[in-house]
Amino acid sequence: MSVVESVRWSADGSAVDIIDQRLLPGRLERRELRTVDEVCDAIATLAVRGAPAIGVAGAMGLVVALAPYADMAHDEFLERAATLGDRIARVRPTAVNLAWAVGRVLRVAEETSGDGAAILAAMRDEATRIFEEDRAMCRRIGEYGAELLTEGAHVLTHCNAGALATAGIGTALAPVYVAAERGRRVAVFADETRPLLQGSRLTAWELSQAGIDVTVLADSMAASLMREGRVDLVIVGADRIAANGDVANKVGTYPLALAARHHGIPFYVAAPWSTVDPDTPSGDAISIEHRAADELARGFAPPVLPEEVAVYNPAFDVTPAELVTAFITDRGIIRPPYRFEHARHAESVQG
Amino acid sequence: MSVVESVRWSADGSAVDIIDQRLLPGRLERRELRTVDEVCDAIATLAVRGAPAIGVAGAMGLVVALAPYADMAHDEFLERAATLGDRIARVRPTAVNLAWAVGRVLRVAEETSGDGAAILAAMRDEATRIFEEDRAMCRRIGEYGAELLTEGAHVLTHCNAGALATAGIGTALAPVYVAAERGRRVAVFADETRPLLQGSRLTAWELSQAGIDVTVLADSMAASLMREGRVDLVIVGADRIAANGDVANKVGTYPLALAARHHGIPFYVAAPWSTVDPDTPSGDAISIEHRAADELARGFAPPVLPEEVAVYNPAFDVTPAELVTAFITDRGIIRPPYRFEHARHAESVQG
Repeated sequence: MSVVESVRWSADGSAVDIIDQRLLPGRLERRELRTVDEVCDAIATLAVRGAPAIGVAGAMGLVVALAPYADMAHDEFLERAATLGDRIARVRPTAVNLAWAVGRVLRVAEETSGDGAAILAAMRDEATRIFEEDRAMCRRIGEYGAELLTEGAHVLTHCNAGALATAGIGTALAPVYVAAERGRRVAVFADETRPLLQGSRLTAWELSQAGIDVTVLADSMAASLMREGRVDLVIVGADRIAANGDVANKVGTYPLALAARHHGIPFYVAAPWSTVDPDTPSGDAISIEHRAADELARGFAPPVLPEEVAVYNPAFDVTPAELVTAFITDRGIIRPPYRFEHARHAESVQG
Repeated sequence: MSVVESVRWSADGSAVDIIDQRLLPGRLERRELRTVDEVCDAIATLAVRGAPAIGVAGAMGLVVALAPYADMAHDEFLERAATLGDRIARVRPTAVNLAWAVGRVLRVAEETSGDGAAILAAMRDEATRIFEEDRAMCRRIGEYGAELLTEGAHVLTHCNAGALATAGIGTALAPVYVAAERGRRVAVFADETRPLLQGSRLTAWELSQAGIDVTVLADSMAASLMREGRVDLVIVGADRIAANGDVANKVGTYPLALAARHHGIPFYVAAPWSTVDPDTPSGDAISIEHRAADELARGFAPPVLPEEVAVYNPAFDVTPAELVTAFITDRGIIRPPYRFEHARHAESVQG
């Protein structure tokens, strides 16, 4: 089984090698990003997407973009690094991972003495560390989660929290990949995920590339599938997890949780520990991004909506903790009662 | 307030005057059907759709298609009527209303003496009766249902069970139209209704034409909207209602019922009494049509699915009776416990 790699160093290390996700599922095309313009453009146009993948691409992108300036002196190089880093971090200001990863690489630069070449080498090491940490995080989620998948399990998922969204094997899909790797037969139902169809375009594509049995359905069909007894468990990702365990994730996650509860089907959230935000007491404190009406009105050609009607188009929703069977995190599987108020210090939490 | 009329006699009675629903919401174009080919084509290509509307169009279509043969003698005319009626009824064999309405008109033909002209006149009267009965049925549903809509009510609906699907003011939308007629302020949230988008293309359009406040959302967003306290009640139509009250309706109805129950929001099914099938003991006995993968894979241009993946695409789902607050029927509002086993004889049921 081979899982697609959405972002990695190019063979000679001179570029960030990404899958251009805008062309999926029609065409698999890799692109090599070398300049700051190419890096910013790839992030802005969603050629690379998914919080972890964006962070990794930004950090690596800053390194390759600085290569032409390696012969600069210390201060001059640092200044250039800060300028380019700032440009990259601002491309998607709400993508916390992007600013975080670029910041980590810049901090290492500031702490390194020597000329541009020396600083650049330290930055490359740090970007590689971010890349490797992301892969390791995915792997751990996959290994914890795989224990929940018995032979012949049918998993339902929503949106894309897979390899395409990370540098590794994904979050929600990681348990599926690890179980398959271990020779277990698993099948996935992928919600198409309106309005942007990440489920059909991305999740279905990457699972299919890995030879995993996948079936796409419209979001509204998941409850019927559960009623037919065809879903053994639900695994979704998370954009943010509040202190009480409420989960913000792609809109459409919440009704899945309701349907799963009604049918007695476990509802798992797979996410890196960094997603837990102990400063957010509950889902009510999370403000939800509403997106352009065109995403619903003009998804098809020709337009599918009368021009004059309003559109309700939130990007995420909040699933209450009480509907979550467990969290599959890189620190283990967390079951209720959820006490994330002190998550940053909770080193003793174990799977 | 003016509600669109999806099917009616043309001004001079020589044609069936329909809205060509294939062009909505982009263009409102009416077409006059005169020949059997035109009638069959309109039904086959979904220019006219919705069970009641198809029945009315089929019955009226048979009458106009027979006009050129009015000078035939009794037996010859009857034979021609049977041939054309059979052609029309077969265009959509699963549309029970179509065969039923055409059959009613043909039965009247057989019971009428005199020449072709006399028979044709009797058939026209019967088709007009079917048309008027359908309008009266919608009106009654609307009047019963309007009592459930208080000033400022926000109604959520799914698919299109509106004027476009009937000869009158619809079923699920009828209470909205009647409430609006009475000067009550009501607003509708319309699920877009994947995969064929009847909600955005048709429901949003017809409500908008009538000047009623309407907002479209992706099906997966309805639960969030309920959680925000923005939905006062749900009203959906029904394709079939089993003896125990289980409801077969457009896929996506069931998760709405689950979400409504979870949020303590009333979930109403508005349907003509003819939808009740006492011979079907429960929803489990209803077999669900699965539709072409292309509806999910190729709904957009360019294609949104990898070619090799499977698709789960049922056209309807079953909502258990226990999730239905009440049925709004042309015999009144029916509340639990549902005892439809003897529905055909239940003349005493009252709203």
